[in-house]
Amino acid sequence: MNSSQDGIFEGGVTTPNGFTAATAAAGIRSERDDLALLVSQEPAVAAGMFTTNRVQAAPVRYCRALLDRDSTVRAILINSGNANACTGTAGMRDTQRMAADTAAALDCDVNDVLVCSTGTIGVPLPMTKISAAIPGMPARLSRDGGDAAARAIMTTDTRPKHVAMTFSLNGVPVSVGGMVKGAGMIEPCMATLLAFITTDAAVTLAALRSALRQAVDLSFNRVTVDGDQSTNDSVLMLANGRAGNTPRLEPGKPGWDLFTDKLTAVCRRLAYAVVADGEGATKVVEVKVRGALDTADAAKAARAVARSLLVKTSWTGADPNWGRVMAALGVSGAVFSTERVAIAYDDLPAVRNGCATDIPFESLQQVIEKPAFRLTINLGEGSAESMMWSCDCSEEYVRINAAYMT
Amino acid sequence: MNSSQDGIFEGGVTTPNGFTAATAAAGIRSERDDLALLVSQEPAVAAGMFTTNRVQAAPVRYCRALLDRDSTVRAILINSGNANACTGTAGMRDTQRMAADTAAALDCDVNDVLVCSTGTIGVPLPMTKISAAIPGMPARLSRDGGDAAARAIMTTDTRPKHVAMTFSLNGVPVSVGGMVKGAGMIEPCMATLLAFITTDAAVTLAALRSALRQAVDLSFNRVTVDGDQSTNDSVLMLANGRAGNTPRLEPGKPGWDLFTDKLTAVCRRLAYAVVADGEGATKVVEVKVRGALDTADAAKAARAVARSLLVKTSWTGADPNWGRVMAALGVSGAVFSTERVAIAYDDLPAVRNGCATDIPFESLQQVIEKPAFRLTINLGEGSAESMMWSCDCSEEYVRINAAYMT
Repeated sequence: MNSSQDGIFEGGVTTPNGFTAATAAAGIRSERDDLALLVSQEPAVAAGMFTTNRVQAAPVRYCRALLDRDSTVRAILINSGNANACTGTAGMRDTQRMAADTAAALDCDVNDVLVCSTGTIGVPLPMTKISAAIPGMPARLSRDGGDAAARAIMTTDTRPKHVAMTFSLNGVPVSVGGMVKGAGMIEPCMATLLAFITTDAAVTLAALRSALRQAVDLSFNRVTVDGDQSTNDSVLMLANGRAGNTPRLEPGKPGWDLFTDKLTAVCRRLAYAVVADGEGATKVVEVKVRGALDTADAAKAARAVARSLLVKTSWTGADPNWGRVMAALGVSGAVFSTERVAIAYDDLPAVRNGCATDIPFESLQQVIEKPAFRLTINLGEGSAESMMWSCDCSEEYVRINAAYMT
Repeated sequence: MNSSQDGIFEGGVTTPNGFTAATAAAGIRSERDDLALLVSQEPAVAAGMFTTNRVQAAPVRYCRALLDRDSTVRAILINSGNANACTGTAGMRDTQRMAADTAAALDCDVNDVLVCSTGTIGVPLPMTKISAAIPGMPARLSRDGGDAAARAIMTTDTRPKHVAMTFSLNGVPVSVGGMVKGAGMIEPCMATLLAFITTDAAVTLAALRSALRQAVDLSFNRVTVDGDQSTNDSVLMLANGRAGNTPRLEPGKPGWDLFTDKLTAVCRRLAYAVVADGEGATKVVEVKVRGALDTADAAKAARAVARSLLVKTSWTGADPNWGRVMAALGVSGAVFSTERVAIAYDDLPAVRNGCATDIPFESLQQVIEKPAFRLTINLGEGSAESMMWSCDCSEEYVRINAAYMT
């Protein structure tokens, strides 16, 4: 998993120059780190994308408002174990206090600190414990802190998820790093997870926002675990300019396409890691739709199949159940005629002209038994395409979510 | 479960006068009845509602076309074990042949026979076996055949589901009976299940269609098991007039309101039975939304909560996880402000003004441990209401659907 057609992946959020991280165990959860602090040595241009859920946690509203009026940031404080959502005006005061405590500890302006929370909804944060833990964190900031930070932000995740890429931008070495948490409550439409992306590239604010939006659309918005959208989830990106590339990156300037390609590759790698770590997931499935009338139809069709609980449970059973795929397509809202649909598992055609091919059941089953495979659907209407990454839904998913409070 | 505020429920599709049923084991599935024949002794006025899935099984297209041009029917032949969906032109020929074989056996016109199928998608029907089984069925038609018919149409259902009500319509005894199959691939928007309703009331065609549409909207369209819509599901209703009520029932005529109330009660009882028999379900939850801006918003909110996999798994764990309810409301599309939302489990308020009340966790848990409870959500925006019946999602649901081919 360390190299691919995109290049080599290693490291994390502290791989780009000028970024450090530290963690602490504040006691929000028992006996493990539950606070992560990510710091840029100089003010970094910042961009964010946030949940589209109407119910938004206090830290989401806080970060959104801050990034609307202020485009440079020094630090992000993240806690796991408590979402600080549905906590009323006290919840917003707690977020403000987390920012203020962090600013005091770092000796910076309160408006230079972003705050994220993930975990249980509706429970007040243990602010006394959190305020006690923050002052000790700056002394522990380190270039080696990325791995511990990726672990501290985990909730039901089974493993830390972080990567980085380093590449030459017109002769200047530049890095993009990222970490993500998220294994359940995962659903496209930028309502997905907490992800933090860093880069030492010099980028203008408008360009950073545009690059992030595009990268998120091609990565985090293409994954689904359970079709539920969280109240908290956010992607935040900081660019501190340490690499010293000139001029600052912008569309049309040299190196722009390379930079956005690498950013997208980092985001896609993180998004794939989220699906692979989906709650109870045993396999990752790429749902590819071709031959749609337009891109919107292709996306609708891919999403409907990738979300269908009946389709996902059939993958768990290694059942080449293309009938459930057809049923999901039929309610997707995409335009198509049953008699023109083709469906393939990896390279094996299971359906042609809306009917079963003569590929043996056992051959299809062997594809679905693999830990990763591609389901290709051709609607036979046009030439538009889309894709989604999904995972199967096992009994373990239900066990986790019947037990996880709350 | 045999009486309620609506009256006494007993019997099934052969309770109304002039209806008989028979079953047969055609070998579509091994060692159990898989064909059911429902017959009205005289031509019955017929109405139907069908799946909104774009992928429609041959029998759905057949029945829809027939009821568009012909309003009276003598018989319905139903097979389980094979959906005859995604079976191409051969599938339509098979449906036509099932109708023709049934018409020949009953000595009636082929246009007097409706055909329904449920089961595996994409596999050709074993027509030789089916054609061999049909001729013997008329001789076995009986007023006692309703229970066997309700069993023969089952797929993953764990129990037959059928009821009837008898009542006095302006002094004339009238009955409405019904049976339903469906436990998975259950989702509102009339894409739900196979249901068959009979009545000996005399009803005009236009009135029957209108009464059925309204009753289905208040019953089968209010249930969700897994959010997946089937390619096959249909509600068919026959009214044979045997009760002899005059004039024939129509809106505004005496007895119309009583008749539609009873029809709705029968449909609601059947719909409730489907949720209670939901695949792997251990409890039924009534999701009631009040205080919405308009009915569309109320319905959207109720549906989003009733469908959320995270909400459903929390019920399995008896977890008063109202945070997941808030998250589901937030993506429902309904207009509301978090700080005005109230949520109650039965009579216990869990959320007021968008924040937790001080009702102890254990008290809420006791409600959710019950086999049936009501979740009431007040959006605090207006006075519109809606409701949905849902069930929990247990590990058993996944086991069933990982194993059921296909």
